[in-house]
Order: sequence, then structure tokens, then C-alpha cells
Amino acid sequence: MRAAIIDELRAAFDATTVFTGNEIDPRYHTDMAGISVDPPLAVVRPRSTEDVSTLLKLCNKARVSVTTQGGMTGLVRATMPLPGEIVLSTERMTAIEEVDTGGGLVITQTGVPLQRLQERVGEDGFMFPLDLGARGSCTIGGNISTNAGGNRVIRYGMTRDLVLGLEAVLADGTILKGVRKYIKNNTGVDLKQLFVGTEGTLGVVTRAALRIFPAPAEQQVALCALQNFDKVRAFLELARKRLGGDLTAFEVMWNEYYRLTTELVKGVAAPLPANHPFYVLLESSGSDAERIRGDLEDMLEHALEQDVISDATIASSGAAAAAIWRIRDSSVELSRAIGPHGVGFDISIAIDRMEAFADAVNAAMKTIDKDAYAIVFGHAGDGNLHVNAKYSPTVDRTEEVTKLVYGITGDFAGSISAEHGIGLLKRPYLKLSRTAEEIETMRTLKRALDPHGILNPGRIFEM
Amino acid sequence: MRAAIIDELRAAFDATTVFTGNEIDPRYHTDMAGISVDPPLAVVRPRSTEDVSTLLKLCNKARVSVTTQGGMTGLVRATMPLPGEIVLSTERMTAIEEVDTGGGLVITQTGVPLQRLQERVGEDGFMFPLDLGARGSCTIGGNISTNAGGNRVIRYGMTRDLVLGLEAVLADGTILKGVRKYIKNNTGVDLKQLFVGTEGTLGVVTRAALRIFPAPAEQQVALCALQNFDKVRAFLELARKRLGGDLTAFEVMWNEYYRLTTELVKGVAAPLPANHPFYVLLESSGSDAERIRGDLEDMLEHALEQDVISDATIASSGAAAAAIWRIRDSSVELSRAIGPHGVGFDISIAIDRMEAFADAVNAAMKTIDKDAYAIVFGHAGDGNLHVNAKYSPTVDRTEEVTKLVYGITGDFAGSISAEHGIGLLKRPYLKLSRTAEEIETMRTLKRALDPHGILNPGRIFEM
Repeated sequence: MRAAIIDELRAAFDATTVFTGNEIDPRYHTDMAGISVDPPLAVVRPRSTEDVSTLLKLCNKARVSVTTQGGMTGLVRATMPLPGEIVLSTERMTAIEEVDTGGGLVITQTGVPLQRLQERVGEDGFMFPLDLGARGSCTIGGNISTNAGGNRVIRYGMTRDLVLGLEAVLADGTILKGVRKYIKNNTGVDLKQLFVGTEGTLGVVTRAALRIFPAPAEQQVALCALQNFDKVRAFLELARKRLGGDLTAFEVMWNEYYRLTTELVKGVAAPLPANHPFYVLLESSGSDAERIRGDLEDMLEHALEQDVISDATIASSGAAAAAIWRIRDSSVELSRAIGPHGVGFDISIAIDRMEAFADAVNAAMKTIDKDAYAIVFGHAGDGNLHVNAKYSPTVDRTEEVTKLVYGITGDFAGSISAEHGIGLLKRPYLKLSRTAEEIETMRTLKRALDPHGILNPGRIFEM
Repeated sequence: MRAAIIDELRAAFDATTVFTGNEIDPRYHTDMAGISVDPPLAVVRPRSTEDVSTLLKLCNKARVSVTTQGGMTGLVRATMPLPGEIVLSTERMTAIEEVDTGGGLVITQTGVPLQRLQERVGEDGFMFPLDLGARGSCTIGGNISTNAGGNRVIRYGMTRDLVLGLEAVLADGTILKGVRKYIKNNTGVDLKQLFVGTEGTLGVVTRAALRIFPAPAEQQVALCALQNFDKVRAFLELARKRLGGDLTAFEVMWNEYYRLTTELVKGVAAPLPANHPFYVLLESSGSDAERIRGDLEDMLEHALEQDVISDATIASSGAAAAAIWRIRDSSVELSRAIGPHGVGFDISIAIDRMEAFADAVNAAMKTIDKDAYAIVFGHAGDGNLHVNAKYSPTVDRTEEVTKLVYGITGDFAGSISAEHGIGLLKRPYLKLSRTAEEIETMRTLKRALDPHGILNPGRIFEM
């Protein structure tokens, strides 16, 4: 069977499109951490939607599974090939077909790296608002199939909100031509939603129409100190009310995060004393620097008068703004500075339960060892917290800590994955965030759209 | 079979929940235009999600179809009962369960009328941005299942963009508990998308978590005149760039619409002369009146200097703003003033093809009769145009005109329904906006989730 599919692939595509055996570069089966698995049966590098359709038709007929790879920057082992799978790499589907500034959209193939798309629309004074650390490597297709979030969700939403239309190929090779240039289209099922955030399990996304926005010329960044979490909530409400669509970031840091980062991480200064219970980084963006600055000053003055915040500083230069952002962006460095034994989490939780959640995690960590604790920070404006659970350096207790934190996340009706997806790595915990009925409905959809289970099988849930 | 299901319903619910025969009020089988069909087999009025589940379980077992009714304000005959169907009315599911201003959300049952929800969150200084003419009667459930649009889409998106989470019941009675309070949740398929805009064909939506926003305190309205459609596009780009998140409406009117409305409709004045090819109504909203006004003035001054617009007036009072809005809102009155023979359309089209589309419709109307013409206006910022196709009062040529306009819409890769949905009325034209593969995929989903076809069968597409 397997030799047969390889012959068929060789017959259908040229030699630059199909790699097998020794031709397969290790990067197709090595993850971000440098861990490798066995090479796939073949690597196929289509140039077009039609190529993808041809490939899937052959694999569907032969019942050979396919895992679709973008930039391979995922964190949940969704695209590392399982034994006997074929890798579909989108690395040659890199055409940016059209930038339409009047319509506020770009049409692109999905193998384009995020940063290349950002730069291309930037040439026309526009921005594609999605932004994340892996921008140089991750691809638009990966962003779509993981519904990537990142730094500007509070203003522009997740990737899902930026997708106007998609072209996708179903398991049997059927091409769904859904690249459309308008946001309003109430003509039955919005099929593109099936392919956003489903990690390549329901189809392969080949082209996309994405929303772009005029690039804001000016940004202002403030750091504020607050006495308790109720005030964090009140401050978010105030910032939303007063800054409206100009509010582009609202990041919260618990005391431990701020104190330890500014103490331990080299090159990170503390613009405010480290004795406040909470800190908020706030960013405001717009076309007029003076206006943005004035509105921010007025809002902070009001917040100080009303005792919502205890202290605040506005960055007086681009360098000062970058220094404030550096505090928030130094979580990896902080984790390294503290020591090896820690487990990172990316969870969503309703804002009115965030404080109780953080307290519960901290209390539970004491059952791991008496000096264990959780460092908490994140995109509070999006309901998204990062938790770095630290314990004393004795033995690796990753699994125990993972179960504990995800268990509490489930108790608080949170999501175990705000951004990173499920893949293989978080599959055992899916049931903490989704009901049995929901998971069964996902299975129903999978069976309907991919009856032979050839598209990234076993990722997200077992069939 | 039918007598059996009625006995089962009577056994499962109290007498106030089930109506049959003479107990059935005509409003359950009469549309907005006053046209009635035969009464349904029964009307069932659940109070809760569990009631809906009980009802669907019984109907699924008995293979009896169900049509779910909200406020019955739809325009495409999606919820008028077909012979032998049971009506599920959400009219007693009217609890607004929670308004969470800190989290920016409201949790509600889906039978709540839109206006009641708007007013309730308004009491807390917030707004639910969805707004449309039928606000007093239409329900949240109807808004969700038709993915309603309305007046503020350019800033806040469609209903889909306002839904954080849904509780829905599948055809077999399975309850999907998906009311979640956070926007980030990358844990497999986003099942709520199956129920938004699918007109009750894949499930019944019973509860929803919806996004709310601080109510903007101030609004400014301007009317501008432009020499050609390229300038309309440039003006939209400029307004987006300069006003950013404050831009809450960008409505275009072709000369015929503006001229005829200000000439023929009683009480509608012309703030600018009626000899310009295009007019744009622009609205800007925010918390600070002075700032909003200043930004708008600066932007218009720049647009005049750059010759993007030829003339402009900013409303100097709330009454003046209302007078400008009245021009845009008088389409029904205009249609009446001109005479009976006209057909209205609600289509989406890429903004770069709008002018050619309007010209093509006008040219094609001359094949109907030499004095026929199209009045064009709409939410240009959303890619949504309204077309009122007028012809001389001889005989009714609705079907011919409909085929003609939808045919051109298809040729221009537009959507035949930007907002109103498909239902039964537009079903024959669905294939003009969706490919055969897309429609077949919708059928696949329908068969998977509702194998006996009991939920609103025949609406959107035939099985």
C-alpha cells in the first residue's frame, strides 16, 4: 500500500515536489525544542490549491494520513508526523496575490510567513494586526488553523476575526472556493469557520482573504500600579470607556511577576516601586500623537483621582515604552533566571474569577512543596492568563503540576488553551474545557467531513 | 403518528406550553406582510434549554419537523411553518441572566427581544451594538440564527462577532453547553459557529453570552458630496485611517437616491445641493464630544484640500444629525413615493466592483423597459449595497427583475444576501453566491448533525 502511494505521488508531481527517504530534511520531523521523531513516509510540497487537491485525493483513496505543516512553530505537537504519515508542507505556497487598501483586505496563499505579510501590507501604510513572537517563521496557514491570538487581540480580535474568506481542500480533494472580499454574506453555513482553529483536522487551508487596517502612526504606553484585583477590573472598564478603539493592550502582572522580573532579569528596570499588589501595562494607538497622549493622561488622572490606580507612569520616549514592554515580554527570561523547575500554562478565565483562580493555584502549589508558587500575568483584557508554576528543584513533577493547574482551570470553567491549541500534547486534558457532548459533536463533524480519518488524525481528540 | 406526538407533548409539558388546533394564535403562521399559511401541528413554548431538549428528543424520535420562531420579523420565510410542522416559540425564554460590565458581556436566554437587551445593558452605561429596525420585536435568538447586521457593522461587526458563547440543542436533544465568558478558547472546533446564521437548521440556540461595550457618549454626523466612486473609496480609506475605531457609519448614496429622496419624501431636506454624483453619510462616536468633532473637522478639511470630497456639512445639533440620518433611512418611503413597481435587494459586493455593478444593473434594467432604473445606496464600509430596481407600472415583473439582479450579483462574485438570509424565498438563488461544492458540504453537515432532517428542513437548501 505504502509503496503504491509513493509511486502515485511520483507520477502526479515533479521531483522537486515529492521527497522520500534520504531526501527528507530533518526539519520536517523536528519540533521547536529540537526533539525529532521518525521521518514521514514522504514530504509533498504543493504549489497550488489544485496540487493539494490531487495529493489529498490520492491519500484518501489509499487511506494514508496527512499532516499539514506551516512554519512548525506550534507548541502542542499537532504537526509532528506520526508513523506512516505524509507531510504536506505549504512552504512553496507563498504568493501574496493582492493587497486591496480600499477594500481593507489582502489575498494570499497560506504558506506565506506572517512577518512577510506584515511587511508587504506595511509598504502600503497598512497593517495586518496579528502579531506574535514566531512571526518570522510561522505561516498564515498555521495562524489560521490554530486561530492565533497574540498582542493586539483586545482591539482586533483573534485570527478568526481577521479572516474574510478561505479556500480549503477537504479530505477527498473537494475544493471549497470561499475567498470572498466582503464581510457580510448570510447565505447558509459559514464554512470557513470549520477550518479556523481546527489544526488541520477538517481540511487544508490554501488561500485566504484577510482584513488589514491602516497602520496607527502613534502609540503611547503607560505602566500603572493597583491595590487589588477589583481595581484592575474597574481600571479595564474605565480604559475601555475612555479610550474606546484606541486601547490596543491591557496586560496585567501580579506582584511576583513584576517584582521578580525587575529584580532578576538583566536589563529590565522597574519604572514603579515593586511593592504594589498588581501592575497594568496599557497601550493606546492612533493617528495623532498629541490626541492619544492627551486622552491617556486624562484617563490616568481620573483613575488616580478616583483611587482606581495608586501610581502611574507614561513612557516619555520610544525607548521608555520599549523598556515597559520588556517587563511584560521577559517571562521566558524570568523563568530561566529562577531555575529549571517550572511549568508554563496558557489559560482563559472569566475576568471576575481571575483573582480567585490565581489564589487557588498558589494554594494548591503548596501541596507540591511548601515553597512552590505560581507567577501569574497575561492579557487580562482578553481573559487570557499565563501561569508559570514554580517548585523547588528536586525531581521533575511536570505531570502532577499540569494535572493540578488544569484541574483548577476546569473547576473555574476556564479554557486549558487560550491560544496554543490542543494537538497531541494537551489532548488528555481536552475534557476539562469541553463537555463530553461537545467532543462527541466534534467527532461527528470529523466523521462527516473526513470519513477515512486521513487529515491529521488523533490530534485534538481520539476518534 | 401525528396524534401520537401530540399526546407525547401533552404528557411532557403543561397546558400553557403546548397549543394545538384552535388554541393556536394566527401570529404563529402569519408573516410580516400579513400573509398566512396553514396552522402548524402544534405550538410549543419551552421555558428552558431542558424543555427544548425534551421537545426535540420527542420530535426526532417521531420524525416530526420543527421550525423555531423568535420575533417573526424575518424577510425570507425561514420560520413560517410548512405543513405538518411543529412551531417551537422562544417567547417564554426571556431571562437576562447576568450583566457583567467588568467582563464586557451579558448572558441571556434567546427569546429576549433585542430592544429589551439594549435597554437593560444601557441601564449600566453599556450598549449591545447590534441595532436594526425590527429591534422592538426581533429576538436575540433570531439575531443569532440569521447573523443579523444592521447599522454599526463597520465598527462592531455582525452578530457573529458579538457572540462569546452559545448553548444550543441538537436535533436529537443533545445539549451543547458552550456559554463561556472569554474570547480566547483554542480547544478544537468552535461549535457555536454552526448555529450562527444557519437559520435554525443545525440546532436551536437557547442561551448566549454576548459582548457589550461602554456606550459612547457623543456622536457627530457629516454629509459629504463626491465626484466619482474612486473618490468614495479613497474617502473610506482616509476616514478609516484618520478616525480609526471612532468611525461608526460610512453610508453611500448614489445621486438618484439622494436626489429623489430629498425631492419626493415629505420632511426630508437636502443639506447639500442634489447635483453631485455621490453622497456619503459619515458618523463618528466617542466619549469626548470636542475631540470627536475636532477629529472629524480635521479629516474633512484634509479631504477637501486633497479634492477627495467636493463639499461637506457637519450636523450642528442632534436634530441636524437626525435630519441627515433621515435621508439614509427613508428608502421605504422613497420607494412608496415613486410608485408600486420596484424590487428591493440586499447584496454584498467588493467595494472595488460596486460602481461597475451599479452601472451593470442600471444598463440591464433598460432591457426590462426603457425607463427602468436602479436606485443604489447602502453600507459601503461593509461592502453591502441596497438596490431598489424600479420599472414602469404595467405588470408585475418581480421574478424577471430578481433573476436579472441576482444574475449580475453572481457575475460580480457578490453575495445575494448580505443580511437577510436565505430561508425559502432566496433558496432558488443560493447557487449564485455559493459553489456546488459548498452547498454539498452544507448538506453533509446537515445530514451529520440532523440525520432525520427535523430542524427547519428545506430552508436554505433542499436535501
